[in-house]
Amino acid sequence: MTDCVLCQTVGGNLLWQNDLLRVIDACDPAYPAFTRVIWKAHAAEMTDLAEEDQQTLMRFVLLVEKTQRALLQPDKINLAAFGNIVPHLHWHIIARWRDDAHFPQPVWAERPEASPAAKLAQENRRKKTSAQIDSYHQALIAALERVAP
Amino acid sequence: MTDCVLCQTVGGNLLWQNDLLRVIDACDPAYPAFTRVIWKAHAAEMTDLAEEDQQTLMRFVLLVEKTQRALLQPDKINLAAFGNIVPHLHWHIIARWRDDAHFPQPVWAERPEASPAAKLAQENRRKKTSAQIDSYHQALIAALERVAP
Repeated sequence: MTDCVLCQTVGGNLLWQNDLLRVIDACDPAYPAFTRVIWKAHAAEMTDLAEEDQQTLMRFVLLVEKTQRALLQPDKINLAAFGNIVPHLHWHIIARWRDDAHFPQPVWAERPEASPAAKLAQENRRKKTSAQIDSYHQALIAALERVAP
Repeated sequence: MTDCVLCQTVGGNLLWQNDLLRVIDACDPAYPAFTRVIWKAHAAEMTDLAEEDQQTLMRFVLLVEKTQRALLQPDKINLAAFGNIVPHLHWHIIARWRDDAHFPQPVWAERPEASPAAKLAQENRRKKTSAQIDSYHQALIAALERVAP
């Protein structure tokens, strides 16, 4: 669709793709491990897809989750598909830590108040995650290659 | 688990359950059609489940989505699994409208500024959705009964 940003652009740094979907680094400065899986064909909702495609898409979303857990050992994984702003089916997969900037809120919430010590811990967490991002992306691409149909 | 609120309580108004999962009305005053699907066994992440169970859980989540779309004709469906506060696997399924209180933000975001006219439209939307909730829940229970294994 000509007026859909996810039909017209990659939507981030492309990590991997096949005919059906692409996996991107969301390039979120606060959340370096924020990854998205974007269905290539224009569809707004999961239930616009055939059941086989729903399963394929979730299999890739959960491969991202599995790789984030294995490589980054986060305290929690957050999964979401909203599409309120860009109604083209895409999944957010976000590794979360107790000492990240929004925990325990979703990353879209207002940032909770934090003491100077908590802010320092958040910045250290962000830096530590950033330092692991190349390894995470390499492992993710390798995992995607292994399961690709 | 004795210290997990979703192991110890229903977590909302129970609409339907089987051996594996339960579907509840989240009883969110701002979002009457907010529904949750809660996996019964204690697990924090989707990738803690066997692949068959992941598929079963998503099939039920998407049945809720399908029923919300059919009965309520929302502008968008929002799906999310966070678990930062209660790390027991549960999915949020939320029918969204352009004139609801947070659109286009997720419902966990700060409520955007709204003009008096927009606030009136939001209140009318909430009332309209509330008026449809019994029909939605009845249709959802019927749909769940039909697909139940």
